[in-house]
Amino acid sequence: MRASRYLLATVKETPADAVVISHQLMLRAGMIRKLASGLYSWLPTGLRVLQKVEQIIREEMNNAGAQEVLMPVTQPIDLWDESGRASNFGPELLRFTDRHGNGFCLGPTHEEVITDLARNELHSYKQLPMNFYQIQTKFRDETRPRFGVMRSREFIMKDAYSFHLDHASLEDTYQIMYDAYCRIFDRLGLNYRAVAADTGSIGGSGSHEFHVLAQSGEDAIAFSDSSSYAANVELAEAIAEGERAAPEKPLQLQDTPGAKTIADLVSQFQLPIERTVKTLVVAASEAAGGGLIALLVRGDHELNELKAEKLPQVAAPLRFATNEEIREAIGAGPGSLGPLNLPIPCLADRSVAVMSDFTAGANIDGKHYFGINWERDLPLPDTADLRDVVEGDPSPDGQGRLTIKRGIEVGHIFQLGTKYSEALKATVLDENGKSLPMPMGCYGIGVTRVVAAAIEQNFDERGIIWPEAIAPFQIALIPVNLKKSPRERELCEQLYRQLTEAGFEVLYDDREKERLGVKLSDAELIGIPHRVVVAERGLDDNTVEYRARRESENTLVAPDAIVQFLRDRLK
Amino acid sequence: MRASRYLLATVKETPADAVVISHQLMLRAGMIRKLASGLYSWLPTGLRVLQKVEQIIREEMNNAGAQEVLMPVTQPIDLWDESGRASNFGPELLRFTDRHGNGFCLGPTHEEVITDLARNELHSYKQLPMNFYQIQTKFRDETRPRFGVMRSREFIMKDAYSFHLDHASLEDTYQIMYDAYCRIFDRLGLNYRAVAADTGSIGGSGSHEFHVLAQSGEDAIAFSDSSSYAANVELAEAIAEGERAAPEKPLQLQDTPGAKTIADLVSQFQLPIERTVKTLVVAASEAAGGGLIALLVRGDHELNELKAEKLPQVAAPLRFATNEEIREAIGAGPGSLGPLNLPIPCLADRSVAVMSDFTAGANIDGKHYFGINWERDLPLPDTADLRDVVEGDPSPDGQGRLTIKRGIEVGHIFQLGTKYSEALKATVLDENGKSLPMPMGCYGIGVTRVVAAAIEQNFDERGIIWPEAIAPFQIALIPVNLKKSPRERELCEQLYRQLTEAGFEVLYDDREKERLGVKLSDAELIGIPHRVVVAERGLDDNTVEYRARRESENTLVAPDAIVQFLRDRLK
Repeated sequence: MRASRYLLATVKETPADAVVISHQLMLRAGMIRKLASGLYSWLPTGLRVLQKVEQIIREEMNNAGAQEVLMPVTQPIDLWDESGRASNFGPELLRFTDRHGNGFCLGPTHEEVITDLARNELHSYKQLPMNFYQIQTKFRDETRPRFGVMRSREFIMKDAYSFHLDHASLEDTYQIMYDAYCRIFDRLGLNYRAVAADTGSIGGSGSHEFHVLAQSGEDAIAFSDSSSYAANVELAEAIAEGERAAPEKPLQLQDTPGAKTIADLVSQFQLPIERTVKTLVVAASEAAGGGLIALLVRGDHELNELKAEKLPQVAAPLRFATNEEIREAIGAGPGSLGPLNLPIPCLADRSVAVMSDFTAGANIDGKHYFGINWERDLPLPDTADLRDVVEGDPSPDGQGRLTIKRGIEVGHIFQLGTKYSEALKATVLDENGKSLPMPMGCYGIGVTRVVAAAIEQNFDERGIIWPEAIAPFQIALIPVNLKKSPRERELCEQLYRQLTEAGFEVLYDDREKERLGVKLSDAELIGIPHRVVVAERGLDDNTVEYRARRESENTLVAPDAIVQFLRDRLK
Repeated sequence: MRASRYLLATVKETPADAVVISHQLMLRAGMIRKLASGLYSWLPTGLRVLQKVEQIIREEMNNAGAQEVLMPVTQPIDLWDESGRASNFGPELLRFTDRHGNGFCLGPTHEEVITDLARNELHSYKQLPMNFYQIQTKFRDETRPRFGVMRSREFIMKDAYSFHLDHASLEDTYQIMYDAYCRIFDRLGLNYRAVAADTGSIGGSGSHEFHVLAQSGEDAIAFSDSSSYAANVELAEAIAEGERAAPEKPLQLQDTPGAKTIADLVSQFQLPIERTVKTLVVAASEAAGGGLIALLVRGDHELNELKAEKLPQVAAPLRFATNEEIREAIGAGPGSLGPLNLPIPCLADRSVAVMSDFTAGANIDGKHYFGINWERDLPLPDTADLRDVVEGDPSPDGQGRLTIKRGIEVGHIFQLGTKYSEALKATVLDENGKSLPMPMGCYGIGVTRVVAAAIEQNFDERGIIWPEAIAPFQIALIPVNLKKSPRERELCEQLYRQLTEAGFEVLYDDREKERLGVKLSDAELIGIPHRVVVAERGLDDNTVEYRARRESENTLVAPDAIVQFLRDRLK
């Protein structure tokens, strides 16, 4: 591509309304332009990246046996009434009526349409499993679109839906999709983690989110430094470390009049915080039989409410006890609670169970026990995983320790079960002629979002640094001054021809009026991984200057060796 | 692709609500399914074809220097207010408001959005010309969607828009697009014609429609049997043939009491119809100075109202005179009019000017003149092209004769001029620093429609016959009975592997329970251009049976020669 015939559209200034780096760089690099709030046009440079992402996804979905289809953007609202989502979805579902007054919506997702298709086309277990996908425009009427294409209203998704005879088949395909997603993000060249996601009633293995790790991510991800284990911080299992030490200190009741919080206690009595216990009182839900229950976590740990809600003794929804309830049941305020002499049931976090010589409230206002020891001073209560993991915790799979980083969710795979197939009566006959609703899986990738996430993970102060596989161009060919030097022009034209014929995607910056500095900055801003600078001075030495986007030094290469040199570098 | 793992979705019965053959065959071949009126999902077989069409278009647009972009489906209505089309477009423009009450529409076309982009990004003549295209989903709220994807509400278009400094540059790019369109339709393997279209004020050279020739086409196309000349029948220039012969008959006034029409006259007096003249009286428009004017065409020809409206003596809008106006001005009824002794001005079609010894009304009720001759009996009036062409007319480019066939419009290229750039103030500075609105061109291809049109042109009683370039699969590999014959299965698996590795797209019909007849019918219905049947009996003779979709005889080929055989056939 000759820059003189290309809408480069690079911008020096950082656009005022762009907050995140990917949004700034996509505007500055001429990848996108805003049409209206949450609506973006993709310019040639942006679209080149987008199409490479699409192609990698397409190839891996095809390799995984999924069949590509294309469903309409506009969907009849009737189908959403059938599934029950018409009333659940809220104003993010953009609805409208056609000229005849029929109700439609712009599809934010296609479960209804594909299930309608499946109920018409799939009739026998012999046809199953089938997995359909599309790469298609979606619409979600976000109340506050932001971060460019990261959270836009119109966006491109790869959405796939699988249909099965039974749950075992769904799990097989789920695993196939999990593996395909790993191959996709590997090929995209991104640092990502497959994260076990909360699936409510379905259970932990039924859903994974794929996160691209980046400081700007909205989610905190805990992952092992030595294995593939990764989970949302809220869902990662917290493991207690070590054995409980033998008691060394005597049990002492002390006055602690000013210590209403762990922080007060630690600072006033110079205590190591990991020798303190927090006692949090919650009201067990009706499903758990009601009543108050105390949850114990180490002073430096945080109660994880999701985990608490999953305990049969607590159950959802979790509600913290009021001060009045606490005082009535225990006879002390919330700042002075502890496991010793506690008149209500109690559950200890696993890390609390391995503590010794610790400090906790005495269930008397203004008093704490110091030197508490399990089994010596009180029996060890039932234990459970009650807390958020923290950096350095052992990985739950027994391999390595947890690191916590932020992630951008770019993919999600989910075992839907029969929610939609039951609602829409998408059934097949099994081997015995019995009609069964098909268990379904769904598998999404935010295609436009992947582009932004790739930038959030790969940039420096000069611009984007594309992973090789999705760079808009592989090579920038930059003459120093075409106008002045016919020799330079001749060599550039020759190299452009040779590199193009060798199959490379080259941006040849043949703009005559731009200075070298501008051309170099543009190539760096756009993030082209490799550049070749052709200068008059180099011609005398028979060299051109090569530099990779991540390097800071030039390599001098003879012009007639540069094609092979680049072949080797780009292998 | 193994048929057992593929949504073949073929249907034996012709669907009741499908009128045209492409709609019937696309449903029967499992290419599309209706979601709602004018909304279709593309199943795997259909999408494979659609993507091949897209890819050919993309490659040729890129080769022609156009830059691919992607604009949103949803467009702010503000831009349509700016261009003035919000009020002109009518209910085909589907409008809606977002959750904040802002007005939007689903884009039926993208002139406004691209012009908005251009006014922001293009500032100098040095950037021009630029030509942007996209392959994208469009929406048009047709009042009566019909013929499947031929006239659906949601459809895919390739739309391109070029921007220029001056009209000469627009004409250059227009020609480049014309040539690119020819390459696209050539590569698609379609029989098509580029047809000069009516452009109103812009003039004949400013617009061409590309029509795929097919009996079911909505438009009648006149084209030369010896050159590339083609035009919509209404616009094709009608040429008079031959020289006027010398008078042979005397002028005679005859009573023709029952002859109110040419048909009456011809049958009552045994006249050759091409020796009769029709006299049609129209009211010249105000722009042409008003008054009545008579238009003469040969008895077997039809007046072309579009052509008449372009004459300065008539001008638009054309209105036929009432019987009362005719009687008042001429003194006779419309069934007895003619050029001799006519008291109002008159214009003759070119073919009338070369007539001799002809018959026309006498401008006296119930009387006609026979044996009229120009220059002998009355002066030749001014002549003009006033009629529709007919089959066999000389081609206006002087090469060959006109054939008239029906066509399906699949592409349209158009010199827009400055309509949008003026309305949206999309200007650039020229060499002298003067700000000028950019002349624009627009170039569309109905991508989904191309698929239907290709079928309308290529089918037989057994199904679709795809042109090689856009067939969903190149080869159908069909075993006679996999279950019974392990040898057959072994050979099929081997051939499937070899053919796939050789780069062919193969549908391997490995369905165990289907009979051979069903498998053959499906392959023919889907229109796969080449098929290989593997039978137990052939294994003994060391042969497999090859047949092309258009052939009716098998060719026997040795299994180990079939890959090379197919390579040769598919070259």
